[in-house]
Amino acid sequence: MFGIGNKKISTESYKGVRDFYPEDQAIQNYIFGVMAGVAKSWGYVEYGASVLEPLQLYKSKSSEEIVNEQIYSFTDRGEREVALRPEMTPTSARMIASKIQELPVPIRWYSIPNLFRYEKPQRGRLREHWQLNVDLFGIPNLLAEVEVISLAFDIMKKFGAEEKDFQIKINSRLLLDDLFKKININEDKKQFVYRLIDKKEKLSDKDFRHSLGALIGEKSAKKLLENFYLGEALLVSMNESIAAKNLNKMIDILRGRGISNIIFTPVLTRGFEYYTGVVFEVFDTNKENPRSLFGGGRYDDLVNSFINQKIPAFGFGMGDVTIKDFLKTHNLLPEINSTVDVCICIAPETNIEEVYKIAKIFREKGINVSVDISAKKLADQLKSLSKRKIPFVMTVGSEELKNQNFTIRNTKTREEKSGGISDIIKFLENV
Amino acid sequence: MFGIGNKKISTESYKGVRDFYPEDQAIQNYIFGVMAGVAKSWGYVEYGASVLEPLQLYKSKSSEEIVNEQIYSFTDRGEREVALRPEMTPTSARMIASKIQELPVPIRWYSIPNLFRYEKPQRGRLREHWQLNVDLFGIPNLLAEVEVISLAFDIMKKFGAEEKDFQIKINSRLLLDDLFKKININEDKKQFVYRLIDKKEKLSDKDFRHSLGALIGEKSAKKLLENFYLGEALLVSMNESIAAKNLNKMIDILRGRGISNIIFTPVLTRGFEYYTGVVFEVFDTNKENPRSLFGGGRYDDLVNSFINQKIPAFGFGMGDVTIKDFLKTHNLLPEINSTVDVCICIAPETNIEEVYKIAKIFREKGINVSVDISAKKLADQLKSLSKRKIPFVMTVGSEELKNQNFTIRNTKTREEKSGGISDIIKFLENV
Repeated sequence: MFGIGNKKISTESYKGVRDFYPEDQAIQNYIFGVMAGVAKSWGYVEYGASVLEPLQLYKSKSSEEIVNEQIYSFTDRGEREVALRPEMTPTSARMIASKIQELPVPIRWYSIPNLFRYEKPQRGRLREHWQLNVDLFGIPNLLAEVEVISLAFDIMKKFGAEEKDFQIKINSRLLLDDLFKKININEDKKQFVYRLIDKKEKLSDKDFRHSLGALIGEKSAKKLLENFYLGEALLVSMNESIAAKNLNKMIDILRGRGISNIIFTPVLTRGFEYYTGVVFEVFDTNKENPRSLFGGGRYDDLVNSFINQKIPAFGFGMGDVTIKDFLKTHNLLPEINSTVDVCICIAPETNIEEVYKIAKIFREKGINVSVDISAKKLADQLKSLSKRKIPFVMTVGSEELKNQNFTIRNTKTREEKSGGISDIIKFLENV
Repeated sequence: MFGIGNKKISTESYKGVRDFYPEDQAIQNYIFGVMAGVAKSWGYVEYGASVLEPLQLYKSKSSEEIVNEQIYSFTDRGEREVALRPEMTPTSARMIASKIQELPVPIRWYSIPNLFRYEKPQRGRLREHWQLNVDLFGIPNLLAEVEVISLAFDIMKKFGAEEKDFQIKINSRLLLDDLFKKININEDKKQFVYRLIDKKEKLSDKDFRHSLGALIGEKSAKKLLENFYLGEALLVSMNESIAAKNLNKMIDILRGRGISNIIFTPVLTRGFEYYTGVVFEVFDTNKENPRSLFGGGRYDDLVNSFINQKIPAFGFGMGDVTIKDFLKTHNLLPEINSTVDVCICIAPETNIEEVYKIAKIFREKGINVSVDISAKKLADQLKSLSKRKIPFVMTVGSEELKNQNFTIRNTKTREEKSGGISDIIKFLENV
């Protein structure tokens, strides 16, 4: 009836995106649940928006690479230029700007949107991914940094990660500015130096030195590198810099809160052009794969690009693909049961309406129940349970219905419990 | 720094889609929570997929109107034709077809995807909406219809609707086929008669009769209409039709389950071409606005368009926009509090790290807490609470910290409770 003649339609999804079968969706839901749970516990409230945005939103604010090479955009039937959002920050800034008069600061927002980038699909890099966005608007001082980084740390701990499993690298663009001034790097070279530093990890030490020398001169390059190699001592040596003082204080407070895996990293800049101050990035400490997990920073000028008002902001984005990889690598993904609590299997010649009446009693007590109405042999009904990861099974036939005596079995431990429906419910409630 | 010179970027979202500020998102979450909760209680498990699908997926299966006039599609940078999904059923059928060997029937799936249609934005019709999809695969008999319609009814009840507020209209395409045969309507006219019947509500009685007469002849038209006017008596009169028998039985069972607002409606056909048997549609009974709320049906041939295997299927889709309108009209939307349980306001000259320590204790007990670090005057901090819909507030200053004696206040009733942190927590846990 459908398809062209007998030709079958392909069952493949679009390239670089994922189908989420129930067992995959359950993992997504677990990850999103931990993220959202921690964000909410810190007082952040959820917002949302459409995946479609005017293309204009990204033209001057996202990184050039994203807009020119990676954005999904098209012209709609009404000649509007539309984009599939490649990141969420411009959207949240747009929304904040639009209603700033009605929103009392501090504004604490979170969302877990899907984002699109046209990339060659590869490990950890898909065309669609989901990303927790946590943003705190309206706080110009380090209280924002300290809170949001504490929250990010909390999420990692809730996932079961230990401090030795990851590292929080932190820096400030304002500190770099002060450092550049101190060693007389010209203001108009600043953006180029940022970008070069951002690529440092991808270059050999020699190539990096060479490029840096070519950009700001051998002497300044040598001085800059000497300063970088100081590590935390740099923050002390720059005692005239407010940025250094704040960064020092911030690190102290975070360590005071028990976050020992924070490390000042003067070469950390992050790609987005909208960052204006502190930036941070969390790395896996796994030596074989010391990848970046997620990061964020301060962007005090972004809301200002919509309205004549400056709203300080600090936030981060944490992607599902990278985090899932991390959890798998570190063996932190829990085994996840089905959301179905009980499967009722049906013996032959059983009155199915009576079975549904029992299912209804379960549901009314908050127990999720599925009835096997496949009419398959009982043995086959039971065999399919292991695939479904349903924790309990109850077989019902005329005998059980007549005596109102049922037996529920734990599909893993094979432990059984018999009794009337209220006994079974009490048993399930206490599991 | 951003935007072109001083020109500000527009804060408007893309046309026909919605921004969800926290108070809007809270309503979405309430609606999605009820939908998902009921689906899960019936043993349905969540799946998901990307909003991007190969355009090919819709070319032969969705209604012509959707593909030609309403689909969002574009060609990607790799020359692939891509669509933003206009409905979820083709996606779930594709996924089922792809892994049918691994999926034991009955397969019970639900999802709440966002869907896109290029429409003139109007009441109840936006370009993006969310839709609960509930589908039961693998059951060829009326047990599927009875279960899925019961589940749909359950959702309406969970939203607080009463039976008098809505009506479940039901019909079967197989019954219409039998009826057409009985009164000698030619097989090749069938699809046209379906479409005409589908438009009946939009035509005057006279125009409908006239078009029907022109299509199948005056005599057959008269006979058909006579049969339609029989209502449920038609099911009895067609005692040789299996479809009529099944429909009768189905209605009996549903009424036996207490679903009294089900009504046989022989002119109900629904637009999608993939339906093959029973169809149903739920209507608001509000006389001023007797709109369609949602509906579904049997589509036994859809999976077959991907693989050489027939998988019977029955399901429905329920959209967020229409349901929200219904809930508003019938005054069924509850007042929704913030997910933040407690806001801690801070008196001047207070050690903020000590305040965060208290917040941490709250969080560890599962209490969501936000700290007002705005440094605004205490009166202004308290004033902003009504906008935030946070149920409890606790003001903390040096005095409270020194004495470890705190006072928490219900922001609505103004009821207060004082004591140590553990007293406060006990109080909150028993609210």
